Amino acid sequence: MAAAAPGGSATSAGRTRRRRGIVEQEIYEHAARLFAERGFAATSLQDIAVSMGLTRTAIYHYVDSKDALLEQIVTEVTLEGVALLRGIRGRTDLDPLGRLRLAAYETASRNAENPARFRLWHIGQMELSEPLASRNERAKREVLAELRGLIDDGVRAGVLRPVDSRTAALGILGMCNWIAWWFRPSPEHPVEPVAEAFAEMAVQGLVAAPAGTSGPAGPSPQAASALAAVREQLDRLDAALQHPPHA
Amino acid sequence: MAAAAPGGSATSAGRTRRRRGIVEQEIYEHAARLFAERGFAATSLQDIAVSMGLTRTAIYHYVDSKDALLEQIVTEVTLEGVALLRGIRGRTDLDPLGRLRLAAYETASRNAENPARFRLWHIGQMELSEPLASRNERAKREVLAELRGLIDDGVRAGVLRPVDSRTAALGILGMCNWIAWWFRPSPEHPVEPVAEAFAEMAVQGLVAAPAGTSGPAGPSPQAASALAAVREQLDRLDAALQHPPHA
Repeated sequence: MAAAAPGGSATSAGRTRRRRGIVEQEIYEHAARLFAERGFAATSLQDIAVSMGLTRTAIYHYVDSKDALLEQIVTEVTLEGVALLRGIRGRTDLDPLGRLRLAAYETASRNAENPARFRLWHIGQMELSEPLASRNERAKREVLAELRGLIDDGVRAGVLRPVDSRTAALGILGMCNWIAWWFRPSPEHPVEPVAEAFAEMAVQGLVAAPAGTSGPAGPSPQAASALAAVREQLDRLDAALQHPPHA
Repeated sequence: MAAAAPGGSATSAGRTRRRRGIVEQEIYEHAARLFAERGFAATSLQDIAVSMGLTRTAIYHYVDSKDALLEQIVTEVTLEGVALLRGIRGRTDLDPLGRLRLAAYETASRNAENPARFRLWHIGQMELSEPLASRNERAKREVLAELRGLIDDGVRAGVLRPVDSRTAALGILGMCNWIAWWFRPSPEHPVEPVAEAFAEMAVQGLVAAPAGTSGPAGPSPQAASALAAVREQLDRLDAALQHPPHA
């Protein structure tokens, strides 16, 4: 038996999973190319197998049918996309800027890790039948709603400019989605610098107070202490109104 | 003779040009949809005509062949895109930030005005034969090079962060290109606010020194407007305390 590959899982289940992931990614690549070239209807699972140098039997080990392939893609791209953004929006350990940054980073990173999957989803969308088509549309709307929510949270907190959150969210999605057409991950082209650059562009593009100001972030000590004094006076006013002297 | 339409050209040539532009845009819409649904090879010019309710003869008034349609699209999308960016890069009346802003604005604006044209180009690219395929590839590289140049100019001038200009340029292009899949221009959805929002996101996303520092020193507009709102609420509170409802 071969020893575990460096950095890999030593278990047989881990190896199988990894092998499965690599083959699936290859299926996405070939399917995306063939669908784009010949159209979805004119491409069979066997065409994909032939293009990969696999037998028809071998590809059935990974995919049951073209419809099953589309269902898997929709699940991975839109449904998991919603779950991801929803999870980030619930992160109370991060402030609104941190949450928006993470959302942009993860969205970019997912597309950069698997660009063929996104392209395949983009082509395959037109071929979806019910109920998958509706699930996909709903999930797309939810992805946009979650990203808008992350931006609106930042606007309300005063850390983002008062932008139209729909346009801004579609701008960030566009930047991240387009990765699928120009990036291929490889040891020479790692995913992280691209995801990092886009997360920074997304946040800086919308931020209200420039993060680049020198010194610790925040208002001047004078303004902060004046604000604290106003707050204290408001508390006193509140208390006085609750308990008027003639009560 | 009819009087000139408001804002329109009074000449017959102007009307013909405008009518031609409207029909061409409609051809792009129908062709983009049919190519995406059935594939390029399986769609004839006659299919496009039928889908538009035109006769085969009528469509030949606007397009000579599918190949001519692709050639026109490549010219309008990539070749004119290069010329546009090159022109902006040569604008000595603008500083590097102004040039980058204009480049993002115009790129977004062109796609928002004619989203079907971009989608048609995106699908049709795979079908190009020589020498058009090479011209298109060269023009794509030149669009990227011009946009990188605009960013590098800004980095050298110290007004943009020292980013990787290739990744940054592809981020801006992605944001602008993706417009083709979510935007349709109409009187209710004008092009300008989207182009303006993306130009601002593109520049602010890359700017080194906060843009808010130019002009007279003072608090951010957000802080100033929040303070004004607090003052107004205090006035109301004051008035309410002077004249309680039970008085």
